[in-house]
Amino acid sequence: MPVGDTSLPQTIYSIQGVKLGITEASVRYKNRRDLLVIELAPVVQTAVVTTQNAFAAAPVQIVREHIQSDDPIRYLVVNTGNANAATGDDGYPREPNVCKALAEKTKTNISQILPYSTGVIGETLNSDAIVSGLDDCLENLQADNWQEAAHAICTTDTIPKVASTQIEIDGETYTITGIAKGAGMIRPNMATMLGFVATDANIAPELLQSMLKDLVNLSFNRITVDGDTSTNDCCTLMATGQTLNKPLINSTQHPHYHALFDALEKIFVRLATLIVRDGEGATKFITVAVTGGKDTQECCDVAYAIAHSPLVKTAFFASDPNWGRIVAAVGYAGVPDLDANKVSVKLDNVAICTRGQLDADYTEAKGQAVMTRPEITIHIDLGRGKASDTVYTCDLSHDYVTINADYRS
Amino acid sequence: MPVGDTSLPQTIYSIQGVKLGITEASVRYKNRRDLLVIELAPVVQTAVVTTQNAFAAAPVQIVREHIQSDDPIRYLVVNTGNANAATGDDGYPREPNVCKALAEKTKTNISQILPYSTGVIGETLNSDAIVSGLDDCLENLQADNWQEAAHAICTTDTIPKVASTQIEIDGETYTITGIAKGAGMIRPNMATMLGFVATDANIAPELLQSMLKDLVNLSFNRITVDGDTSTNDCCTLMATGQTLNKPLINSTQHPHYHALFDALEKIFVRLATLIVRDGEGATKFITVAVTGGKDTQECCDVAYAIAHSPLVKTAFFASDPNWGRIVAAVGYAGVPDLDANKVSVKLDNVAICTRGQLDADYTEAKGQAVMTRPEITIHIDLGRGKASDTVYTCDLSHDYVTINADYRS
Repeated sequence: MPVGDTSLPQTIYSIQGVKLGITEASVRYKNRRDLLVIELAPVVQTAVVTTQNAFAAAPVQIVREHIQSDDPIRYLVVNTGNANAATGDDGYPREPNVCKALAEKTKTNISQILPYSTGVIGETLNSDAIVSGLDDCLENLQADNWQEAAHAICTTDTIPKVASTQIEIDGETYTITGIAKGAGMIRPNMATMLGFVATDANIAPELLQSMLKDLVNLSFNRITVDGDTSTNDCCTLMATGQTLNKPLINSTQHPHYHALFDALEKIFVRLATLIVRDGEGATKFITVAVTGGKDTQECCDVAYAIAHSPLVKTAFFASDPNWGRIVAAVGYAGVPDLDANKVSVKLDNVAICTRGQLDADYTEAKGQAVMTRPEITIHIDLGRGKASDTVYTCDLSHDYVTINADYRS
Repeated sequence: MPVGDTSLPQTIYSIQGVKLGITEASVRYKNRRDLLVIELAPVVQTAVVTTQNAFAAAPVQIVREHIQSDDPIRYLVVNTGNANAATGDDGYPREPNVCKALAEKTKTNISQILPYSTGVIGETLNSDAIVSGLDDCLENLQADNWQEAAHAICTTDTIPKVASTQIEIDGETYTITGIAKGAGMIRPNMATMLGFVATDANIAPELLQSMLKDLVNLSFNRITVDGDTSTNDCCTLMATGQTLNKPLINSTQHPHYHALFDALEKIFVRLATLIVRDGEGATKFITVAVTGGKDTQECCDVAYAIAHSPLVKTAFFASDPNWGRIVAAVGYAGVPDLDANKVSVKLDNVAICTRGQLDADYTEAKGQAVMTRPEITIHIDLGRGKASDTVYTCDLSHDYVTINADYRS
């Protein structure tokens, strides 16, 4: 069961210039939507960040190649059921075959197509099934298919992940809609399992890429379920505004830039935290907020040490305010010359450890009361500087073990 | 249930110059041996390595201080039930109080005493209970108490951990006996939860310290249960041979050095792997052997990435040859410029992934057959050099979650 508010947006806004088509292609399982094609209008700017895993899957390698091309991206094709990762020389041609078939059907160049795969690692991709499903997807293309698309990219996800917003900046209306998938093998490094966000803003290509990098570092790169970085992480940001009479945003100095970035950040953080809320076996949604560091990196290191600790995660599953495990994780996070006697820990608003020792006002009852909440923030003050960072994670439950002792796709 | 052979040695040899006394001091629980005093003869060489955790417990800080003293160490005092860690200004004086009481009773200096604590973090140490138990321990001192001592230092351990051997080098007989404790919060960094090894060899102090460092890096620093580095790790090596007419070993060139080191290494690795075999909830004992690296560090990084991956560990719990999770962990281990197409993976003698893709002869049945074994070696060949390293770990089971969702001591 996902944790807390994982509801769909009240309104899922379409993005002019973006259409989505879905089908059941039986890539691995029958009777399951497992193929998505996203069609972009001819002049859409697209930016991508991909996994840093050395076993980057064949589709990831092709995405990296195609995004370099001068031709604008026209189609994204996404399958679930098989990640086409660690498939070596056999895996590589299978995605180009899919791209080639789609290029022929749509009269585009193969380099205008970005392929994405997610599912089991190390098995041969059934690219014939994907090719057979393309016609269905193309016939089915609609601007209001975002929710269906979010379903089609799920694997162990128990909920579709959609975020959507509309804002007005200086009389100009901007729309942003995105979907994501992921529940396990989640500690994205430069991107998440799969995230697709589109806006009708008109953003210059270089700026779009740098915005995506910044946005991912505030969202998908700050979540962890199990510390496992996937071979297939990809996050894609599309901006369709060039032919929509939207003002060109081509620098961070543009008067619309900051408000638009903030709106995008909210969408990215919502999608990223939806992944954590749907983390495999999650019963608690945990925010680890670290302040008082010398730099962001050491705050991030401390936050991840806590977020990855199986002992911390099982204590949260048990609603046990076992704060010794939290400070132990702070202590081994590798912060140079950390003075334990300056470190303070709060759970939500309850001070537990103040400057290295039990807070004078702390009682087990107070700690217990916080720990029973489904959403908890661990506040760590390192007491040595002004930097801060935040990571989102979930607990480690019996269901995590059950799911991953069974899952093979 | 611990995994595989966790039997006690056929013979537990006493070490001349070492006596051990045990009692029930009710530090946290009643009716449980929880206090150990080790008495060393006046001229014993002692070397210690301690945790790198920034929240190093009060006893660890005192051990570091006392070991610097010129006076030879005469007593070690070890309690379970409470780690006296993250106890700030309150915790520090409590261990000196114990040392002071023991020094008075034994007419030694306080700096000749090393204190060790293990158990719950962040609670006030009941040092009065420890002091009250000292007389019992001193009355009870015996050379053949190693097995009782191994019981007395257990917390969540389900088995006492003892290793003992006797070897002859050039007509000289050397004896080595050691005990260790630990089952959770196990990813030692420079030492393990608690390990005590004694030999009757006569080893010069500087050499003893450097041997201990090397031995720990081959044993306790190569195990992980959950990746959590404890606040209280300490490993102590004692050499009693100076007054026993044993030849002085004062350099690595000494003709006895290598054979003695090998014998010590076997004892250290046995104690370290006993901790993994008794890992919380463990059902499988897993050796991760990485070869073909450019240097030892990258082999170690890859081995630990695999050994810490919850997805790999749950797959082993399920006896599921889900090797995609193994290569994903290799891929995110941070090895610079790793070529996935040179990486090979074997489970015991079954080749699964050869140079980046499924081995031609692999069948699911072969993988399944290996995975049902209680002891499995994951062989990774990085295909880029001659360095190697090995890490020992266990799987992640429902019982791990159960134990750590309950444990508070």
